[in-house]
Amino acid sequence: MGKKILLGEDELPRSWYNIAADLTEPLQPPLDPRTRTPLDPSQLEPLFPPPLIEQEVTTERAVPIPDEVLAAYRLWRPTPLVRADRWERLLQTPARIYFKYEGVSPVGSHKPNTAVAQAFYNRAAGTRRLTTETGAGQWGSALAFACRLFELHCVVYMVRVSYQQKAYRRVLMELYGAEVIPSPSDRTAAGRAVLADDPDSPGSLGIAISEAVEEALGREDTHYALGSVLNHVMLHQTIIGLEAKRQLELAGEQPTLLVGAVGGGSNFAGLVFPFVGEMLRTGQRRYRVIAAESSAAPSLTRGRFTYDYGDTAGLTPLLPMHTLGHGFIPPPVHAGGLRYHGMAPLVSHLYEHGWLEAVALDQTEVFQAAVEFAQAEGIVPAPESAHAVAAVRRAALEARSSGTEIVVLFNLSGHGHFDLTAYQEYLTGNLSASRLDDSALRRALEQLP
Amino acid sequence: MGKKILLGEDELPRSWYNIAADLTEPLQPPLDPRTRTPLDPSQLEPLFPPPLIEQEVTTERAVPIPDEVLAAYRLWRPTPLVRADRWERLLQTPARIYFKYEGVSPVGSHKPNTAVAQAFYNRAAGTRRLTTETGAGQWGSALAFACRLFELHCVVYMVRVSYQQKAYRRVLMELYGAEVIPSPSDRTAAGRAVLADDPDSPGSLGIAISEAVEEALGREDTHYALGSVLNHVMLHQTIIGLEAKRQLELAGEQPTLLVGAVGGGSNFAGLVFPFVGEMLRTGQRRYRVIAAESSAAPSLTRGRFTYDYGDTAGLTPLLPMHTLGHGFIPPPVHAGGLRYHGMAPLVSHLYEHGWLEAVALDQTEVFQAAVEFAQAEGIVPAPESAHAVAAVRRAALEARSSGTEIVVLFNLSGHGHFDLTAYQEYLTGNLSASRLDDSALRRALEQLP
Repeated sequence: MGKKILLGEDELPRSWYNIAADLTEPLQPPLDPRTRTPLDPSQLEPLFPPPLIEQEVTTERAVPIPDEVLAAYRLWRPTPLVRADRWERLLQTPARIYFKYEGVSPVGSHKPNTAVAQAFYNRAAGTRRLTTETGAGQWGSALAFACRLFELHCVVYMVRVSYQQKAYRRVLMELYGAEVIPSPSDRTAAGRAVLADDPDSPGSLGIAISEAVEEALGREDTHYALGSVLNHVMLHQTIIGLEAKRQLELAGEQPTLLVGAVGGGSNFAGLVFPFVGEMLRTGQRRYRVIAAESSAAPSLTRGRFTYDYGDTAGLTPLLPMHTLGHGFIPPPVHAGGLRYHGMAPLVSHLYEHGWLEAVALDQTEVFQAAVEFAQAEGIVPAPESAHAVAAVRRAALEARSSGTEIVVLFNLSGHGHFDLTAYQEYLTGNLSASRLDDSALRRALEQLP
Repeated sequence: MGKKILLGEDELPRSWYNIAADLTEPLQPPLDPRTRTPLDPSQLEPLFPPPLIEQEVTTERAVPIPDEVLAAYRLWRPTPLVRADRWERLLQTPARIYFKYEGVSPVGSHKPNTAVAQAFYNRAAGTRRLTTETGAGQWGSALAFACRLFELHCVVYMVRVSYQQKAYRRVLMELYGAEVIPSPSDRTAAGRAVLADDPDSPGSLGIAISEAVEEALGREDTHYALGSVLNHVMLHQTIIGLEAKRQLELAGEQPTLLVGAVGGGSNFAGLVFPFVGEMLRTGQRRYRVIAAESSAAPSLTRGRFTYDYGDTAGLTPLLPMHTLGHGFIPPPVHAGGLRYHGMAPLVSHLYEHGWLEAVALDQTEVFQAAVEFAQAEGIVPAPESAHAVAAVRRAALEARSSGTEIVVLFNLSGHGHFDLTAYQEYLTGNLSASRLDDSALRRALEQLP
């Protein structure tokens, strides 16, 4: 049975960790898509309030967490670190496996870590409304929750196929008072263009981003919030790794392997950046670090590192990232949060410079590992987080084969109580493999800007 | 934002509290239904292992918690105590409101507190299989989880209408390896009798109990587990109140009002018994204690205190309890866990002797309060727990009217992530009132044994 390592509320970190301070080579800047010259940060002002733009570009190592955000964090943070010793015994592995459990937040995932920060800074800057997009609904429900705390109106463009199939997540957003709109919609030019082509379009995250950005650009009182990819999002999520680092110290453990699932990169970055930063500062490659992506959207292992748009319509700045091409629509898999064409510039940069490894996993292997984990530890992982579980399982079995004693830390970024349809498919043998359409990927890569 | 009061794992209570030790008058014994004479405890042996039978009748005040059960508890216990100060501000009340949050368990409710204990004692006694019943699925998923931890086969008879409508809870049980059977089924004589009368019977908790008991009686390797009502279940749940008492002391607070939702009584008893016991011992009525029941199954406020069966078919001993009649089938409400005809003998006894108050709440008021709470505190309450929220809301508004400073402790016994269909009905204005059929209740009361 898992042994928890807990921190008191007074041990909650007071600053986020900014890895930009420790990069050996600076991150390439975002580009203005018209001129392809570096974007002036002020050009982001229609979308984000000044403090978030400042966080996007700062190279200060420690960014103080405002008291109001700390107060919000205290509703569910610090989160537990748990030793998965029952799972270890089941795997008969010499590995010692710890997981940081972010599923204890009110919406059941790590997403509120940045949602409450973004809502706070927007509120402080006088924003009245926030727009965003959501796929499976983890991010949308986190922002809806945060907007309720800071009294902002929240508009969520939800990928239409999820809007229809994941009604529970939609209800959760509406329960917090958010306005949820199936995307593509006729509220925006971007949505109308897609619908003109295909009135039955199931939508995609890229399209939903285009719609949310367009609405924010068109209204003075409205800003936009993104749940992953951007530097300030990675920054806010480092609260995860900062707590975990302290908790492992309390347990007297020195990890050797760090694992997180990656879609846009936020839960992964949140866990590993405080450790990777230590490697960057010392030059000692003390930790092996693995990003576990879906084989349906393998931006690190099969994408290209180049400038690309964050959205389908090309409304966002060009970001330097690993990408499958902004026109690529990944096949439907249950880990909706991993179905994104691009990877956070900071994660892409570190991967390019050899500080991280990546592995692409098929969802059949992922769900097998997740059920095994749930049966051993009780907690049912979200399908996204289950990618980390599967990658850890591989490492634990390798450690068994080689007889190597490793210490693993991974991020169990959310629970799967909203995703039991997916588990039902797995348990009844109806889960399909997450195969990529190679020719679609080739076409999307050819259309990179 | 709620301030949490946490305990470390080393502060986990080492004993359960047995209120039978402090009763001013002894509890009436269960009766053999054939002879109507007090049951000899050994007559329970076909259903329960000796240590649980001993706990059912003991008057020892402190019952030690076995190490294996403590180890299982540590996966999610101690649970947080949270000050609901955002909700207080919204209600503009002088009340200080604390809730004990049991939704952090792997299955999202308080039910594993007794499930892991029952699974442990059965395993130790050589039981191979456990049968049980479940309505909405909270108890069934808790026992499935516990059986997985202690390597027992788990058979859950699930009320057919829930089996069909609450597929997610069923998947959760199957994920833990349980066998889930829609009830009434043709596996048992009790089930076949109901189906002969009505092949389309939606089932009820009373029928499902009959089936689970019948299967346990018919197999040497099989015992039965009940998620509420019995003394040993109340005992195991006192871990909730023991922790909360310590946490309030740490917060420097002396509660004046204790509130819990009641169906069979287990989460309510778990929270309040350690406090009620203090009143029994000292004779000082220091706390006001309110049991919040559903107006669809108001066993305390509209039932009779008498001997009745725990199940529909009359297979169980006769228990001294507040009951609506074992033949009464409550109207369908979303709080499936509160749809039971009887109330725990210990809760009934204390209510009869004036130590507890009760209030019956309509689900429209309950969901209104639950949405308000979720918007203030982030956590979405389970429909059952929401009855406690609504009762606390009434008290907080009374405190505002009268300007009285009260300190409230209530049990938020589970989260509502599996119950968002119910919230959707509420948010779209389609939630119906939970009206009781008076003539059906009269008929059921006339048929009491």
